[in-house]
Amino acid sequence: MYTDKIPDIIIGRLPVYLRALQRMSEKGIRTTSSQELGEHVGISAAQIRKDISQFGEFGKQGTGYSISFLLDKLREILKVDRVWDVALIGAGDIGHALARYQGFVDRGFRIVLVFDNDPSKVGQKAGNFMVEDISKMTDMIRDCGVKVAMITVPALSAQEVSDKLIKAGVKAILNYAPISLNVPDEVHVQYIDPATHLQRMTYYL
Amino acid sequence: MYTDKIPDIIIGRLPVYLRALQRMSEKGIRTTSSQELGEHVGISAAQIRKDISQFGEFGKQGTGYSISFLLDKLREILKVDRVWDVALIGAGDIGHALARYQGFVDRGFRIVLVFDNDPSKVGQKAGNFMVEDISKMTDMIRDCGVKVAMITVPALSAQEVSDKLIKAGVKAILNYAPISLNVPDEVHVQYIDPATHLQRMTYYL
Repeated sequence: MYTDKIPDIIIGRLPVYLRALQRMSEKGIRTTSSQELGEHVGISAAQIRKDISQFGEFGKQGTGYSISFLLDKLREILKVDRVWDVALIGAGDIGHALARYQGFVDRGFRIVLVFDNDPSKVGQKAGNFMVEDISKMTDMIRDCGVKVAMITVPALSAQEVSDKLIKAGVKAILNYAPISLNVPDEVHVQYIDPATHLQRMTYYL
Repeated sequence: MYTDKIPDIIIGRLPVYLRALQRMSEKGIRTTSSQELGEHVGISAAQIRKDISQFGEFGKQGTGYSISFLLDKLREILKVDRVWDVALIGAGDIGHALARYQGFVDRGFRIVLVFDNDPSKVGQKAGNFMVEDISKMTDMIRDCGVKVAMITVPALSAQEVSDKLIKAGVKAILNYAPISLNVPDEVHVQYIDPATHLQRMTYYL
């Protein structure tokens, strides 16, 4: 139904559409238009129609989109019609916040393992998880077949942690450490760094 | 020296260059090339040269870039050659983590005000800050002239908080609530939502 050649910038907008549709669905709304969805996400109706049409004909002229149908399709395209196991490396402030965050599971993810190298944290709780020693990380991640990880360790340790994760089979890393990671082409990285996001806005002030 | 018509996608890469150069500088490195910088940030040397040349001739053929000169220029362009006061709204897990985060000040930002609507949090500490009642938010932000804010409240409250921030004069919002915000054209919003970032990667797995 669709090819692998969709531009990454379009892929990046799909989770935003999915999130808005999920919220509409929770409110009991059953159909929407590209105009209405556009107002929710701040993207033009034309762009939304173009993005979604990359994957097939999901809307009907005049009646718009069935939200549940579009939710199913977007979840299938983004492969979050399942729940991915996620490893969390780093049980500091951000790690604890993520371990306690309730918003993952209905969006396709659940944390299953938490690691830290600090002896005072190992064996303690982070959310509902027991923090494991980082020396066990490679084996445990490989044994559990975990493909997705979040790194919240200090910048100086992040590359080493990333290398070990990839060796253990991880293919997607969400990196909170304020440093760019060197990874092979087949591994995907996304970055969360509040200062970088803030600097991108101050340019315009 | 440069116009206001630089594409936003280029502006988005500048903080990444700035971060890598800052790290090199901390290691005592004084000059770099677009090749070397490219390896650090995972962007091609040609792209880096093209991005930086939008703002002037900062490198010399053969000798590369002076890191301190390029740092100064990038800070000036991104307007982080100063320190911006930031208001933090929401003193939950993520809010606490941000209030305690040490990585803002050498990148142009300092939190100055923290607000929450939960009576059990107001008057308590978040990092070094006293949590203020959200009812005082509009007045305190206006009085302090704060232009930058981070929202870490639940999704259901985020739009209302955003509206009040904008009324108080805020022009840039970093939104951690998992919802798209409706803001006027002159206000800038960046989003941090780990599930959205993860979904963008699972497409490729």
